[in-house]
Amino acid sequence: MPFDTGTGAGGSFSARREITGFSNPTVKYLRSLREKKHRKREGKFLAEGLRLLTDARECGHIPQMLVMAAKRDPHPLLSQLEQAVADAGGEIIETSADILTKITGKDNPQAVVGMFAEFDTSLAALERDRGDIWLVAQALRDPGNLGTMLRTCDAVGAGGLILIDDCADPFSVEAVRASMGAVFTQQIGQATWDDFSAWLRADHGGRAGQLVAASLRDAVDYRGAPYCAPCFIMVGNESRGLPAEYEDACDLRVTMPMKGRADSLNAAVAGAVLAYEVLASLD
Amino acid sequence: MPFDTGTGAGGSFSARREITGFSNPTVKYLRSLREKKHRKREGKFLAEGLRLLTDARECGHIPQMLVMAAKRDPHPLLSQLEQAVADAGGEIIETSADILTKITGKDNPQAVVGMFAEFDTSLAALERDRGDIWLVAQALRDPGNLGTMLRTCDAVGAGGLILIDDCADPFSVEAVRASMGAVFTQQIGQATWDDFSAWLRADHGGRAGQLVAASLRDAVDYRGAPYCAPCFIMVGNESRGLPAEYEDACDLRVTMPMKGRADSLNAAVAGAVLAYEVLASLD
Repeated sequence: MPFDTGTGAGGSFSARREITGFSNPTVKYLRSLREKKHRKREGKFLAEGLRLLTDARECGHIPQMLVMAAKRDPHPLLSQLEQAVADAGGEIIETSADILTKITGKDNPQAVVGMFAEFDTSLAALERDRGDIWLVAQALRDPGNLGTMLRTCDAVGAGGLILIDDCADPFSVEAVRASMGAVFTQQIGQATWDDFSAWLRADHGGRAGQLVAASLRDAVDYRGAPYCAPCFIMVGNESRGLPAEYEDACDLRVTMPMKGRADSLNAAVAGAVLAYEVLASLD
Repeated sequence: MPFDTGTGAGGSFSARREITGFSNPTVKYLRSLREKKHRKREGKFLAEGLRLLTDARECGHIPQMLVMAAKRDPHPLLSQLEQAVADAGGEIIETSADILTKITGKDNPQAVVGMFAEFDTSLAALERDRGDIWLVAQALRDPGNLGTMLRTCDAVGAGGLILIDDCADPFSVEAVRASMGAVFTQQIGQATWDDFSAWLRADHGGRAGQLVAASLRDAVDYRGAPYCAPCFIMVGNESRGLPAEYEDACDLRVTMPMKGRADSLNAAVAGAVLAYEVLASLD
């Protein structure tokens, strides 16, 4: 790609250029990252919005490429972001609101979008002592639910979110959006059930992990249940729930009141109600 | 519309016909109900899936029109549903999976879709003693959040969900889907803040209502707070939260731990964590 070297708003020199054409290869490339197969092939993902990108920066995640509306209001946080991208050798692109819309697929896009390298999501990369609570999502299909669970993780001071089996992509635009920045503050693991089980039960030189799930059978009331840290709260697929053998493998099965016709809660809601209960219990 | 009178699966006579054309006016009409302006003009909405439509039936809500895949597996609940529609003088339509996809906008549509008349959502129609908990959504923009809140209402045995100011439409396909049937089990109110306040504070010949909101200022810990029934738990807009004057009008402001960078939870999650706390407190 051709580079123009200009002066960044922060005053430093950075790779900066303007894009005006919808058919520009960079626009097509960024737009392609809305699809999982392209994200996986490239190892990149998109995040939008100044607040979210500022959270990312403050957590040490600097976009490799920053795309901004050419006509935008000045903002000190945006200047700091541009400076950080320039310092890290990233690229800064100015373009129109229409092209930003094309990239993000959103009618009213935020005035700034960042492209990031995907993180290492291997279990080996997780810092298990980072939090007393971890959420574990099994075969969750809704990226909004994953993002909401990441947001809840942040709120309860969790270590992060571990995705078991075939889950939606936590780096999808929808998940990143719903996480409200928590995709950058929380650790994310991805593993098969077998690998997760082995990791959970391995000797980590410290406390054993407690695996907890909401269940309708052989379960104790979720309030006042004997939670202990680190507590891994597992939530199952939106339609099917958890496989029976996964429930069997739990150290603790808890049940929440269901006073109506339904026998389950939204997956992200169930995870949050449990996480707040565990947080109060461990405090 | 032309009617063929055939024999329903339940054995009774009903208005039943087959539609094979994508440009059929009924297909266009049903498809138009995915848009709010058409729903409001017609006073109708769509709900999909045998389980959801069975919940509706068992709660006394019979679709005015039932659209089924011509090639479908027989099911006793579907036969009961057909019978109920026939008994109520409704119409039954058989069509292709492709046309069902066109109507619902879903790649893998459920094999059955119902068209219902929208409910009366005036405050006067609410039965205030129906539950000890009510959720109140203020200017919520995400129909998925509204549906999830209805589902939570069902789970905690609430009276229902009251929508204040300019909320998303609880009868949208997304909200109905996310409610998992609770749109039929829960009462739904729609009102301005002023009308809601007047209704809440009026003498209902019984217990006064307690208005509760999550807040960051002048608030007590949400655990062990002095909740009392009927408790109206108010959740604000996804971006802006509640207006200050609405918070001021609350009887109780509670705060939830926020251990991370974010200062708020997803709206449906916040409502659910509070609702379960209130449920435990009132029990």
